[in-house]
This record gives sequence, C-alpha cells and structure tokens, in this order.
Amino acid sequence: MRKGELTRERIIAEAAPIFNQRGFAGSSMQDVMEATGLEKGGLYRHFRSKEELAVESFRYALAQAVKLRTDKLDCSHGAVEHLRSIVKRFVETPAAVPGGCPLMNTAIDADDGNTVLRAMAKKGLSDWRARLCGVIEEGIKSGQIAPETQPRRVSNTIIAILEGALMMSRLEGTKTALQDAQITLDSLIEGIRNSVNKATEY
Amino acid sequence: MRKGELTRERIIAEAAPIFNQRGFAGSSMQDVMEATGLEKGGLYRHFRSKEELAVESFRYALAQAVKLRTDKLDCSHGAVEHLRSIVKRFVETPAAVPGGCPLMNTAIDADDGNTVLRAMAKKGLSDWRARLCGVIEEGIKSGQIAPETQPRRVSNTIIAILEGALMMSRLEGTKTALQDAQITLDSLIEGIRNSVNKATEY
Repeated sequence: MRKGELTRERIIAEAAPIFNQRGFAGSSMQDVMEATGLEKGGLYRHFRSKEELAVESFRYALAQAVKLRTDKLDCSHGAVEHLRSIVKRFVETPAAVPGGCPLMNTAIDADDGNTVLRAMAKKGLSDWRARLCGVIEEGIKSGQIAPETQPRRVSNTIIAILEGALMMSRLEGTKTALQDAQITLDSLIEGIRNSVNKATEY
Repeated sequence: MRKGELTRERIIAEAAPIFNQRGFAGSSMQDVMEATGLEKGGLYRHFRSKEELAVESFRYALAQAVKLRTDKLDCSHGAVEHLRSIVKRFVETPAAVPGGCPLMNTAIDADDGNTVLRAMAKKGLSDWRARLCGVIEEGIKSGQIAPETQPRRVSNTIIAILEGALMMSRLEGTKTALQDAQITLDSLIEGIRNSVNKATEY
C-alpha cells in the first residue's frame, strides 16, 4: 500500500469513532484534524468534503461491525445454533467502533437528513436481513427449522430486538435490556425449530 | 395563560420537530428563529440557551408521544388485550412530532453527548417500562397472565422490538418491519396468557 493510501486509511479509522459518536451534524473536519494531527490541507488532499469522509467512515464502521458480528461464528451445528450464536455475539460484543451500532446511529441520524448516508444504512440493513434469511432458509432446507417459518419476519424481529435493546442498554448504561433480548430471542429461535427434530432430541 | 407563556409554548411546539428531526448538534437557534419568525432577542427572552430550548422541546415531544400512545386505550378487556392494544397503537400511529420517536432519537443522539438530554431520555424509557410492567403485574394479579411471567423482561422486549422496528421502518420507508414486529409481539403476548384462562376460552 502506498503512503498516501495508508494516510487515507488512517484518517478513516480515526474519523469513524467521531462520526459514529457525534453524528454527521455533530462532527466537523476540525474534530478530525485534531484527532489525526493533520493540517487542513493534508485532510482535504484525501477527502474533498465532510460528506465524503463521513461516507467512508460509515463504510469502515459498518464493515468492522459486520466482521465482529460474523467472524468465526460456529455454524457447524445447524441453523438454530447458528442463529443463537449470532444473537450471543451481538449481545456480548456489541461495539466495534466506539459509539454503538453504526447502522442504527446512521439510520436515526440520516432518516431526516443526508441521503447518501441514508442509502448506505438502508443497504446495510438489507444485507443484514439477507444474511439472517439465508441462515433460516438453509435451516428450512435441511429440515432443522419448521417449514412454515417466515424468514423475513423472523429476521426483522431479530434485528429489531437487538437494535432496540442495544439502544436501551447504551442509554441505561447496563446490559439488562440486551440480556433480556437474548433470553427472548433464544426462546423465539427455539420456537421455529422443526418439531420433527424437537421430538428426536428429547 | 399570559401572552409571554403562549409565545413560549408556541416556540417549544415549533422547535420540537426541528430538534426531533435534526438532533441537538444539527439544530440551531437560527433554525428556530426561521421557523417561529422571531428575532434573536425575542427567542432569547424565553430561552437562555439552545440547551434549555432542546430540553423543553424534548419534554414536549415525549409528552406528545406518550399521550398518542396511551390516550383512550381500551383496557376493559384485561391485561393481555391491553398490551396488544399498546402494540397496535404504536405500530399504527408511531409519530406525534415529525422525526420519529423522540425517546430513541434523543437516546441515540445523546448517548455520547448532552448529559441533561440523556438523563431525560433515560427517565422516559424507565417510565415507559414502568407503565408496561404495571399492566403485566395487574394481569398476573387478576390471573389473566401466567404467574411465572417476568414483567421487566417482557416489557423490555416489547420496547426493544417496537423501537428497533420503528427505526427500520423509517429507514426503509415501509411499514413491513413494524407489521412484522406486531405479529411477533402479538404471539409473544399471547404466550404469557395464563394457561388456566387459555383453557377456559377454548
């Protein structure tokens, strides 16, 4: 990697927590200059505008979050265990970049604001749902998950509870809401297990 | 109400959607001056700072949301129906002040920021949970809800799903996530019905 690219990568990594914590309107190029120790000219050589840097920072923060939430998850015990481990991972290690979930932050920040960031958050949500739907559809195909299960509805529910509970836990400064979410989701996931399989396991 | 108080009330009502949509950092006294048609002097006669106005705007927006979500709910058919109607109301009429749920917006906006707003959002969340816990405890006492039900966990789950789904629905510009949340919650609420009652109803 060339030196210019390295600097660019470093700026993004250091700007990501600023945008993730303070939002688009609450972050300034001045904040990024202070965090990186770069002069105005140095910063603008790599990013033409605050928006361009915010977009790259969100892309970086979301990629980090996805990596943290999916990396080395054990999916060798089938779809039900796979879903439980996705929930467990989210509850136990919710933050990759300081400031909470970049998807939710940007969704809330940009739902009435910046359209580029909004489109990226929308894509992030749709990718997340697609990954969950994929696991559920695999499970239906393999016979581990009940065939009448609606992948989209279950996926939307998992995402909604996790994101909502993360917001609550961060606001209250306790893990209670996330732990309650995990118990509810474990039971919900257990509820979509194919009853044929349930019977053989008892 | 005196003229000064009326003006103050009007400023708060017109500032509330601005703060709710753009967040604390994204809103300025200039924006409020433009929305209200007031001069700087007129605005600062009523509010010493942006923070003071933001606090009153959040108090107003949250009170409106609570009113919209609780007003004239039918609770004459017991706790289970009461919970279902709380969910239905949230899903069908999510916004009192433009910009989505003020509790979630302020929670996300202030979790790394303004401590006064954060404390108010925290109180709003805790009040909401207390109202839900109250309904569930009533239901346990009356025998309609299963005695082993954990009011806090169920309340946290209801809030997490609704808030998470609202974020998703607003981001995607469709009601799907909220509708999926309602179906999941209806089934979850049905699941805490006391089985003695279940039996008598079949």
